[in-house]
Amino acid sequence: MAKIKVGIVGGTGYTGVELLRLLSQHPNAELAAITSRKEDGMPVADMYTNLRGKVDLAFSSPDKARLTECDVVFFATPHGVAMAQAQELLAAGVKIIDLAADFRLQDLASFEKWYKMPHACPDVLRESVYGLVELNREKIRGARVVGNPGCYPTTVLLGLAPLLEGRAGASPLVDASTLIADCKSGVTGAGRKAELHILFSEASDNFKAYGVSGHRHHPEIVEHLQTLHGGPVGLTFVPHLTPMVRGMHSTIYARIDPKARDVDFQKLFEQRYADEPFVDVMPVGSTPETRSVRASNMIRIAVHRPGNGDQLVVLVVQDNLVKGASGQAVQNMNLMFGLPEDAGLGQVAVLP
Amino acid sequence: MAKIKVGIVGGTGYTGVELLRLLSQHPNAELAAITSRKEDGMPVADMYTNLRGKVDLAFSSPDKARLTECDVVFFATPHGVAMAQAQELLAAGVKIIDLAADFRLQDLASFEKWYKMPHACPDVLRESVYGLVELNREKIRGARVVGNPGCYPTTVLLGLAPLLEGRAGASPLVDASTLIADCKSGVTGAGRKAELHILFSEASDNFKAYGVSGHRHHPEIVEHLQTLHGGPVGLTFVPHLTPMVRGMHSTIYARIDPKARDVDFQKLFEQRYADEPFVDVMPVGSTPETRSVRASNMIRIAVHRPGNGDQLVVLVVQDNLVKGASGQAVQNMNLMFGLPEDAGLGQVAVLP
Amino acid sequence: MAKIKVGIVGGTGYTGVELLRLLSQHPNAELAAITSRKEDGMPVADMYTNLRGKVDLAFSSPDKARLTECDVVFFATPHGVAMAQAQELLAAGVKIIDLAADFRLQDLASFEKWYKMPHACPDVLRESVYGLVELNREKIRGARVVGNPGCYPTTVLLGLAPLLEGRAGASPLVDASTLIADCKSGVTGAGRKAELHILFSEASDNFKAYGVSGHRHHPEIVEHLQTLHGGPVGLTFVPHLTPMVRGMHSTIYARIDPKARDVDFQKLFEQRYADEPFVDVMPVGSTPETRSVRASNMIRIAVHRPGNGDQLVVLVVQDNLVKGASGQAVQNMNLMFGLPEDAGLGQVAVLP
Amino acid sequence: MAKIKVGIVGGTGYTGVELLRLLSQHPNAELAAITSRKEDGMPVADMYTNLRGKVDLAFSSPDKARLTECDVVFFATPHGVAMAQAQELLAAGVKIIDLAADFRLQDLASFEKWYKMPHACPDVLRESVYGLVELNREKIRGARVVGNPGCYPTTVLLGLAPLLEGRAGASPLVDASTLIADCKSGVTGAGRKAELHILFSEASDNFKAYGVSGHRHHPEIVEHLQTLHGGPVGLTFVPHLTPMVRGMHSTIYARIDPKARDVDFQKLFEQRYADEPFVDVMPVGSTPETRSVRASNMIRIAVHRPGNGDQLVVLVVQDNLVKGASGQAVQNMNLMFGLPEDAGLGQVAVLP
Repeated sequence: MAKIKVGIVGGTGYTGVELLRLLSQHPNAELAAITSRKEDGMPVADMYTNLRGKVDLAFSSPDKARLTECDVVFFATPHGVAMAQAQELLAAGVKIIDLAADFRLQDLASFEKWYKMPHACPDVLRESVYGLVELNREKIRGARVVGNPGCYPTTVLLGLAPLLEGRAGASPLVDASTLIADCKSGVTGAGRKAELHILFSEASDNFKAYGVSGHRHHPEIVEHLQTLHGGPVGLTFVPHLTPMVRGMHSTIYARIDPKARDVDFQKLFEQRYADEPFVDVMPVGSTPETRSVRASNMIRIAVHRPGNGDQLVVLVVQDNLVKGASGQAVQNMNLMFGLPEDAGLGQVAVLP
Repeated sequence: MAKIKVGIVGGTGYTGVELLRLLSQHPNAELAAITSRKEDGMPVADMYTNLRGKVDLAFSSPDKARLTECDVVFFATPHGVAMAQAQELLAAGVKIIDLAADFRLQDLASFEKWYKMPHACPDVLRESVYGLVELNREKIRGARVVGNPGCYPTTVLLGLAPLLEGRAGASPLVDASTLIADCKSGVTGAGRKAELHILFSEASDNFKAYGVSGHRHHPEIVEHLQTLHGGPVGLTFVPHLTPMVRGMHSTIYARIDPKARDVDFQKLFEQRYADEPFVDVMPVGSTPETRSVRASNMIRIAVHRPGNGDQLVVLVVQDNLVKGASGQAVQNMNLMFGLPEDAGLGQVAVLP
Repeated sequence: MAKIKVGIVGGTGYTGVELLRLLSQHPNAELAAITSRKEDGMPVADMYTNLRGKVDLAFSSPDKARLTECDVVFFATPHGVAMAQAQELLAAGVKIIDLAADFRLQDLASFEKWYKMPHACPDVLRESVYGLVELNREKIRGARVVGNPGCYPTTVLLGLAPLLEGRAGASPLVDASTLIADCKSGVTGAGRKAELHILFSEASDNFKAYGVSGHRHHPEIVEHLQTLHGGPVGLTFVPHLTPMVRGMHSTIYARIDPKARDVDFQKLFEQRYADEPFVDVMPVGSTPETRSVRASNMIRIAVHRPGNGDQLVVLVVQDNLVKGASGQAVQNMNLMFGLPEDAGLGQVAVLP
Repeated sequence: MAKIKVGIVGGTGYTGVELLRLLSQHPNAELAAITSRKEDGMPVADMYTNLRGKVDLAFSSPDKARLTECDVVFFATPHGVAMAQAQELLAAGVKIIDLAADFRLQDLASFEKWYKMPHACPDVLRESVYGLVELNREKIRGARVVGNPGCYPTTVLLGLAPLLEGRAGASPLVDASTLIADCKSGVTGAGRKAELHILFSEASDNFKAYGVSGHRHHPEIVEHLQTLHGGPVGLTFVPHLTPMVRGMHSTIYARIDPKARDVDFQKLFEQRYADEPFVDVMPVGSTPETRSVRASNMIRIAVHRPGNGDQLVVLVVQDNLVKGASGQAVQNMNLMFGLPEDAGLGQVAVLP
């Protein structure tokens, strides 16, 4: 089988270099082009020295990059770039995976409120699929455009899905109106931008919350929670910045419905994810560490019910740059092209 | 005025060296003795090189230390040591401040359950005062024995006190039965012990929860919450280990009572702590950073109500070794000896 | 005695906030003005939350700041700012301490080569004193303008001074033509600038050399080494970036002259620094840690001669923001105003 | 071809888990047994959660492990274990790769001095090969026993080899009697041991030298430098502990011989390593970062000659757990079994 010709738009950020790391080791992909207007002509390995001897490609300006000759284009760009180029690429038969937010929210008003721009192609948005594989696997197989989920939403949605999905008509398991997600992210989650607050000297040996009054991932999580719940959902979401490079830990709190007190929640999670190659439900009593998934596409989940009371506590860890971004994007690509879902994603996490 | 003669039992851990740092700069204290059976004769500055030229004292074995000649003895020891020596010291007129748990819990059964030992002196326990100054200032002034609070309890109690205290008979502000404290601690919180899980190579660039099914600080928080609330309290407490040396961040969630929807919670906190020298209620919208209190005795608190809904989010930061341990102990000493409460505790936090 | 009225120009960087931390705790100084064109009107405590409740001052634009009414002005600015304002301030009787490089190099050609600008006031430069107290104490007492040393030069000059100074005519102790300084700096040494290479995500869990082919501190070190040596000096200087916030460790290599093989180098260092309040020569065999001086003005030095051979290895640690910058600046101020040299600089280092 | 049956003795440390990570992804290896007396019966994935779903093996006690049925046994043990079992394994036709020091030093007196034990099998030692592939490739192909190099020696030997080897009779390039290696190691270099000085709270945000008066890697480096130089060598070696998990940076200083002033050292290094799959000589002016080789088997080297003077500065980076330990061990295995040298070692380094 011929290799998939891959283009990457905007590869100078962390999701870009992570795509390069994963795709350069992928058995069925061929890196055809990577664009950066600013770095036109610069070998990517000059910017990311880990790629020396592994990736020969140079950045090229978008006009030279011949993206329409690719099979798939990944957008590792700021919000708004993918939607501007989507129609041209689709017309040329190119599939699209956007790692930014252009195809994450079906609610246009919400998109415009949070991203401060009108949507450039509502039609394409309507046909696009939200690329959280464990929730939308079949739709993704047939998709031409995938909106790759945000890092926080991936953990919160997978941590809550077994509790909320498919309960229409049935008695609820938890109170969907008082959900809480207390999330902690490594600093790469803030991207590769020259900003003061993410300097080593500012973020090191320090911990803080941010975005408490509102964060773009909040409407994304709520929209997809409501889809799988089939009704309204109330979520308090508090993200925190943690002094580590990679890694995300979400601590999720849900009140157990009085009628669901006899449910075996551990078993519920185990069964829900039994066949998932990238979701590991850990044994009772576990406390997953972020480093246990470092540089890998795995998610690990532990389910707790302190004192056997009415408060459920779900712990979820992922590498925000892999399952939370570029790894999940490759997982989507694999599905869209009929490849084994784990092709190129088999790396063992790097610990210590 | 003569300086207070201070003895420290068990000064080889982090709370010990922090007591030495603070007391060696205290205008009214004189370090008289510091004990360590194992390090008898070793100058403390040989173990803690930051003290070179600042503290001349050497460790001495407990039998040589003449603690009964001190005015006050701090116990920076494992649980169980202070209660074994309390009666002898009290008989000699020496006041006691225990940084371990011997005098934190009035509920003897709870103490025995969590600390796996019978209490050696229930009488002394009964007269002892829980040394959270902002809640018990007047009692501490007259106390002979103070149980210095745990680090997590200090943040959670101060973060919840304005919401729960003095509401007997009044309409509640929040639902006291569904409180959540999601707490993050720097690694010094685990002490100075040769254990694998707190090695640099294990704890660095890593984040995890622990003690989800039960932690010794849980009964401590609940007992004192109930005291100030005047009724039962339900608390879910999830501590996490964060890759930083010092610092603690507690994110506290409380459901606002429907009848309290019009309360100005920011103002409530500001008024409650208006006269407190070590509690800083930050402006609306703030997200306090742990480094803003590094090496200082300050607590900073911010109050959030996302989307003006029914979920209150209180953010609390402290230095776990200062306000969470040794600084608070000095604050207690100041009160017990009629000194200005902030004597020796005026340091500006070290940032960056 | 009236307090010294202090102005700070350009207080938004790390040396600025460190000056504020130290001066706000100084018994003889009064913060009169701090300038920042960009942040005019903003309370400094809004930018540096560690100062909340400790410093009431707001930034003011330079034109409003009335610096000529101060007794002393510190420049915590980019290179070139102090020399532009020096003559006006001196004319008004204001003393100047520049934390940038305008008054560090007497060699004008070298200044212009390394700082890419002509010197604005060579006359002032000529009367200025290089503010390395341990080498120039008496001159500093009488100075109107002090050039505060760079962080690397402070460690290397103090690490080499006992070996080179006052040897004119005498037999040399070491080969002054093959000196090596292998220096490691925490990331605050790079300042508070929005630049990619000092992002947490770039600098954390990473180590690298930089400036191997040339660094501005190289001519500064060499000029002052030659002054104290009284002859030419050859130095290889390799700085490295270390993943820590504060701290500098210089490992200095000098070949012992065959005629000096019987010298007791430990004793030489101990005698040279016996009366220095901020230089601690550690016992034989010590390996000083950077944290042993964190947030303090101390320098610690250890002298090694591996295998009793001909290679001397001198280890020097300092806090780059204190003795390497703002603490040394305050030490200079103390001398210039006849205060005790250690006024306001007595803090015990923060460990852990 | 049948897969190579691999046994690992003592797999609970960092070199053990790293062997498991690499070998579980190796196309030609099969993990047959891993021993730990203490953890007999425990699945390795319970200790190292990154291996969950990747490695099914459980630790077994040495007596049950049937190591004599393996093709090769790796010793990831303390010094002294491999030599005690070597003869039995060799007799059974099993090849041995020791990651400890039993087969690194041919000089028995030196071994006994530094490791405080007599050598158990001098005969085996004599036939063993020092497993630094780039120096001993052909000998390793035929070896039954390989002593895998220490982490520091790997960087220093590869950084100096082009300058010293094969100069017998020729004019020297550098002064071999005044070499200096100033080396910085991440904390995993100290192993996974419950010791105070490598706690997170001790080693974080801190930098120090250690072992200045003597370190076990010093005789190892000198012995092999002398072998390739064909004469005596003088080396000053100063290791430092750096607050990062993985990574090693060696800064090597060599005085250029007056007769070698015209040599193109950049070219010398490039030619020496032109065909080496795991040694990357970087372009002129580069400063390699440790993260550029994180979790990979690459070494990167840069050659500097500041001011075009007589001091050569060679910068070498590696991942101390991969090329500095387990990766190099797998590279040795590949040669010993006629596999492609890079089998299982193709991973792109993880950056950021």
